[in-house]
Amino acid sequence: MDGEEILNQHLGMIDAEINRTFEGHDFPKPLYDIMKYHLGWLDEDLKPAKGYVGKRFRPTMCLLTYNAISGVYDKALAPAAALELIHNFSLIHDDIEDMDTERRHKPTVWKIWGVPHAINAGDGMHVMANLAALRLDELNVTHSKIVDVMGILNRTVMELCEGQYLDMSFEGRNDVTPDMYLDMVSRKTAALIEASTFIGAVLATNDEKTPEHFKKFGRKIGAAFQIVDDIIGIWQKTEDTGKPKASDIKNKKKTLPVLYAFENASEKDRGQLIEIYKKEEMSDGDVSTILTILDGVNAREESQKIADKFEREALDELDKTGIENESMDKLRTLTNFLVNRTY
Amino acid sequence: MDGEEILNQHLGMIDAEINRTFEGHDFPKPLYDIMKYHLGWLDEDLKPAKGYVGKRFRPTMCLLTYNAISGVYDKALAPAAALELIHNFSLIHDDIEDMDTERRHKPTVWKIWGVPHAINAGDGMHVMANLAALRLDELNVTHSKIVDVMGILNRTVMELCEGQYLDMSFEGRNDVTPDMYLDMVSRKTAALIEASTFIGAVLATNDEKTPEHFKKFGRKIGAAFQIVDDIIGIWQKTEDTGKPKASDIKNKKKTLPVLYAFENASEKDRGQLIEIYKKEEMSDGDVSTILTILDGVNAREESQKIADKFEREALDELDKTGIENESMDKLRTLTNFLVNRTY
Repeated sequence: MDGEEILNQHLGMIDAEINRTFEGHDFPKPLYDIMKYHLGWLDEDLKPAKGYVGKRFRPTMCLLTYNAISGVYDKALAPAAALELIHNFSLIHDDIEDMDTERRHKPTVWKIWGVPHAINAGDGMHVMANLAALRLDELNVTHSKIVDVMGILNRTVMELCEGQYLDMSFEGRNDVTPDMYLDMVSRKTAALIEASTFIGAVLATNDEKTPEHFKKFGRKIGAAFQIVDDIIGIWQKTEDTGKPKASDIKNKKKTLPVLYAFENASEKDRGQLIEIYKKEEMSDGDVSTILTILDGVNAREESQKIADKFEREALDELDKTGIENESMDKLRTLTNFLVNRTY
Repeated sequence: MDGEEILNQHLGMIDAEINRTFEGHDFPKPLYDIMKYHLGWLDEDLKPAKGYVGKRFRPTMCLLTYNAISGVYDKALAPAAALELIHNFSLIHDDIEDMDTERRHKPTVWKIWGVPHAINAGDGMHVMANLAALRLDELNVTHSKIVDVMGILNRTVMELCEGQYLDMSFEGRNDVTPDMYLDMVSRKTAALIEASTFIGAVLATNDEKTPEHFKKFGRKIGAAFQIVDDIIGIWQKTEDTGKPKASDIKNKKKTLPVLYAFENASEKDRGQLIEIYKKEEMSDGDVSTILTILDGVNAREESQKIADKFEREALDELDKTGIENESMDKLRTLTNFLVNRTY
């Protein structure tokens, strides 16, 4: 079974659980429909949508971790739904903050319904995440564990906000180092993936060591995941010309490969980078220049090396649990799939 | 002791508890400083501020309810802080959604730091509210009660979002009735005040009946509170001329007195109201016309009557608890103060 198949195998039960969280929440209908649009369930006309809804990668990691330890899925469904809702609430708000008009080839929520309703629908989805997690109470989980899970989830969302603050504050700065970037990514992306595997393990066992390994596994795979995203954001090829799309370059995003170049380029190239990143808009020539500078310092290979190192360390943590079964294999396959994807 | 003194008596311990929630959350500092600015602790330059921070009305209701039943304050401090943080997170976001540039005579968060940082700081304060409530775990409250409180708080924030959706959707509609308005207000304002007294009672007793009375008390005082706000928003007098400021009229807010007039004015006056509310901007003459129509149907007196009815029903619920002590008297004084305030 490959990575994509593993994700598809879990998607149905995750969305069914999210849907259960929505039960009884139906007025005012358009508020909830906006959330369902963002989740991929409804189209722009708020009619049932067909097609791709997203990877549901975080909840799948949570379910597989829980299953690797316990052999079943049941109790992990509630936090799995919560994790996906947290991810999606943060996307709705990030899209406003970054003024992104498209996500998953569809218009973003604020683009269709305006900023005020998008802020409010994001807030609503943030609450739905907490309500999803509180469904643990109906799954016979001890109240003590529920309080633990609520604590982990909320401390994680705080990290998300911290990461988002840093990400926004990095724009227009030339003194951001790869280390500062990795700290930002750790909060903005890796924290929620860490929470996914950590919560799965905390719910499955009272043992202290096992959840710690899964926690580290999640944080490391999260960092690798983001760096791969950064590489794709620069070097993903266009369908027609086969040249790098360089979307993140054009949007002046200072992701790891760019910061690596800022740090390792010659004095002259560095000066050129600073000049170009100062501009309001980049020309095609500017984009080519940057890509050439990045190639000159092997920014892509060096970034991939860092991602690969995180991946190896992540897999080591899995080994340290001493657990071997089908779900552990799936976690490994998924890790490999995520770090080596090209889209 | 009058209402204002009662509020001032509790403000210090509430803010100390909110401050404890912030402990250990200090990076990136500007993110937390933005939140502290909104709470009234810092000025625009992020230096310690002096002066008015807000009424802290909701947490005070929570503390007094808890104290009325238990005789102490301790365990109610955590949810009291949470309630104030929820209120403030929703204000940060509402100010963006309504494009309000001033609150409590100071620029709003988005006005100073821009919309993206304001959305993110509001999200952060939303999380801090949940973390404040989870501090119950350190106050030796049973995990079962903590799960109850988290459920009440989160269902309440969902109502806030529903109320905000309705409020925004009412703009530009001419078919909003006073009943629809009262349903909106019940979600947007009364739900959080209900949560304040309900949580105070739930934490203080395992008795089933007492919390129900305090719950109804909160919802009713919340409705009265909002209607009085609406009256102030129209008829608060300017300091120089002594005439009504009519701020809510100028901003075309369809609050209860206006909706009452829409429903009860003569056919001709109603037509005139519809015409004026269609306009992009109102002239001074338009504002005078509306005030005259409102006076013609006794919109102010009729609205105050509804507020007074809610106040009486609220006080009845307090009587039904059968509890009599100093905190109960303070709850009555505060109720009276809030329903009869003129600012």
